[in-house]
Amino acid sequence: MIPYSQLDKAALEAELKTVTEAYEALKAKGLKLDMSRGKPGKTQLDLSNDMLKVLPDREDCLDGTLDVCNYGNLCGIPSARKLFAELLDVRPEQVIVGGSASLQLMYNLIATAFSHGLLHSPEPWSKRGKVRFLCPSPGYDRHFRVTEFFGFELIPVAMTAEGPDMDAVLQWIKDPSVLGIWCVPKYSNPDGIIYSDRVIRALASMKPAAPDFALMWDNAYCIHEFDGDYVPFPDILKLCAEYGNADMVYEFASTSKVTFPGAGISCMCASEANIAYFQKTLGVQIISFDKVNQLRHVRFLKDKETTLALMKRHAAILKPRFDAVCDALEREIVPRGIGTFNRPKGGYFISLYAMPHTAKRALQLVKEAGVTMTPAGATYPYGQDPFDSNIRIAPTLPPVEELNAALEVLCMCLRLAALEQLLKNA
Amino acid sequence: MIPYSQLDKAALEAELKTVTEAYEALKAKGLKLDMSRGKPGKTQLDLSNDMLKVLPDREDCLDGTLDVCNYGNLCGIPSARKLFAELLDVRPEQVIVGGSASLQLMYNLIATAFSHGLLHSPEPWSKRGKVRFLCPSPGYDRHFRVTEFFGFELIPVAMTAEGPDMDAVLQWIKDPSVLGIWCVPKYSNPDGIIYSDRVIRALASMKPAAPDFALMWDNAYCIHEFDGDYVPFPDILKLCAEYGNADMVYEFASTSKVTFPGAGISCMCASEANIAYFQKTLGVQIISFDKVNQLRHVRFLKDKETTLALMKRHAAILKPRFDAVCDALEREIVPRGIGTFNRPKGGYFISLYAMPHTAKRALQLVKEAGVTMTPAGATYPYGQDPFDSNIRIAPTLPPVEELNAALEVLCMCLRLAALEQLLKNA
Repeated sequence: MIPYSQLDKAALEAELKTVTEAYEALKAKGLKLDMSRGKPGKTQLDLSNDMLKVLPDREDCLDGTLDVCNYGNLCGIPSARKLFAELLDVRPEQVIVGGSASLQLMYNLIATAFSHGLLHSPEPWSKRGKVRFLCPSPGYDRHFRVTEFFGFELIPVAMTAEGPDMDAVLQWIKDPSVLGIWCVPKYSNPDGIIYSDRVIRALASMKPAAPDFALMWDNAYCIHEFDGDYVPFPDILKLCAEYGNADMVYEFASTSKVTFPGAGISCMCASEANIAYFQKTLGVQIISFDKVNQLRHVRFLKDKETTLALMKRHAAILKPRFDAVCDALEREIVPRGIGTFNRPKGGYFISLYAMPHTAKRALQLVKEAGVTMTPAGATYPYGQDPFDSNIRIAPTLPPVEELNAALEVLCMCLRLAALEQLLKNA
Repeated sequence: MIPYSQLDKAALEAELKTVTEAYEALKAKGLKLDMSRGKPGKTQLDLSNDMLKVLPDREDCLDGTLDVCNYGNLCGIPSARKLFAELLDVRPEQVIVGGSASLQLMYNLIATAFSHGLLHSPEPWSKRGKVRFLCPSPGYDRHFRVTEFFGFELIPVAMTAEGPDMDAVLQWIKDPSVLGIWCVPKYSNPDGIIYSDRVIRALASMKPAAPDFALMWDNAYCIHEFDGDYVPFPDILKLCAEYGNADMVYEFASTSKVTFPGAGISCMCASEANIAYFQKTLGVQIISFDKVNQLRHVRFLKDKETTLALMKRHAAILKPRFDAVCDALEREIVPRGIGTFNRPKGGYFISLYAMPHTAKRALQLVKEAGVTMTPAGATYPYGQDPFDSNIRIAPTLPPVEELNAALEVLCMCLRLAALEQLLKNA
């Protein structure tokens, strides 16, 4: 297969004709497919069927002597704090177990920083004048939106093969208006990169100018390998403490992609000083999160070993889907020189770097053919991809046959957009 | 029985001696009892045992065609919106179903007003200079604390037998810095008063100077009769709309005292314009609340009729406890002229007005005798009861025999504190 860049104008035009005809044929099928968001599919949800059975009676609703049906225990029931501690290799005292959404705990942290400040804030962030927040990009759109919502200036930082570009990060944190950074350190959203030890240590040992800089460590995919065994990962809380930064880091995780996205449990892990601080501020807004659901999770997931066994069953469902995407891209896109990507071993996304200036056009074509995907640019602050190149592919929700149909459309659209772009300059 | 005020000094001293000896005898028992918070007791929680059984399998987790286990439906599942709508006599489109705590929805409203403003805010409340909030007192300490947390000035407004003193309210709302009022309109916390139609209409027809004034309508005890049948209550959303105030009101409720306080569901009801506004702001922080628990509630509570039948079973447990408190107060306190109270027919509290300047002292004595109660003043803004008189009694949690023991202590302490106070001036 000859890369498109090596075709002359006539060959490009011939190829455009062929591809356009193929695209129109696909479009005529009137498809209605969704590859837009990281939603588990039905067969994955069915894996947690038995969680619905583990607490059939009031007499089962005891965590030790604690009646989980009544008010109390703001930080979560002891056994749930212990379970998350085991999964994340932290101590139970460092864990607050929340409701169904870790995003809500992250939002709450930023909102509290805004209105009241964090533990070491000289004043609330709302009184700080300009607030800047580092956004390794491409990244998670919902992270960026939280900080955008509060009017912070989002600073894109390039992602490298081993995590955020630390030269840029270390330069930016000298600015006292830079108050935090968003990180998805394991199977990053969307690239699926695992931050290297070098990058993790560089982050843990940062000396930001701001005394209340927040290292937002969203360990969303902490146990979410779909290809190969569980990969151990350093405890960022311990590392930060070693570098004298115990109170700088906030780690988040949830069971949204372990049990049920619509009814999981979440957690925030932080230093005991931070936990004490957030216990006070959270205590103003809630008496306790849903403790019955916490116990339900503990009874079902039991411990790390049992949880990892469940994740293997998710992996068996997910791997063929990721393979389908990666294989299609390797067959149709990479050899034509119109896109690159990293083959991930965990997480929920594949991040394709299409030929620059073609992502928007390709996704417009995709949409017109009836396939819903994450909009181009969504993985960048303010939705602005400077190269108009990154496309986030979420292969988990559609059944495999639908996925293959959607991939055929996507590949054809990528080719069409690339050809149009090349012909503009030919 | 002669009222204490009619005793001469010698008689007071004799009575003090008797009461002191009785108190010391009670203290010597080394009791450890709790009448501090409105927590349901174990037998009440057992009433919802079957809610743990209604969704035993994944195939049951459908609300119509909606798989409640997956992401989505920020405003709640259709059937849960419908259930709350029926209970509160509003329309399903006016309901957002939240997580386990209505307090969190109230906090979120105030926090959003602070950082971003409400639908009709010219600017965020944080940019407003002084913000004042009306606090009918005595009232719910957690309400007051939310607005105190954001630095608002809490303005106490007297409670009358039919709700907040509307003359004071109507005067205060002329001030454009007065941005809201906290109301518990049915079985008010702690007085157990049902706001009269006159007061409700006066609130619904207010014309506050602030365009974004928030009528916080915490209908916490909307179906919580323990003495007699369900009392119908006006739909405040409709009333406000009739007076051209559709967007002024936010109604809250939860199942915390219907099913499980630690694992209930909550709701916020508001105009459709407000729902649209909050859908946008909530969408930044959460994809959806726990929808499996929403469906569990729908399957268990079914409809208003079934829910009211459950509340009758709660009532059967609660009435003897409230009677125990009211009877003790009517026997020991009222005839001695050292306290008054309203005998409530619903809600979770009895609000005793002890002889002025004796509440703190009485509760100090109570504490020393091993009984935990809500601290004196807690029902007033900043914890400051101007008359040092109001005492909130929460009789639901302790078993009846413990309750009686605690009441014996309370009554003795009230007598002792009154005698000390009278002797100061004798």
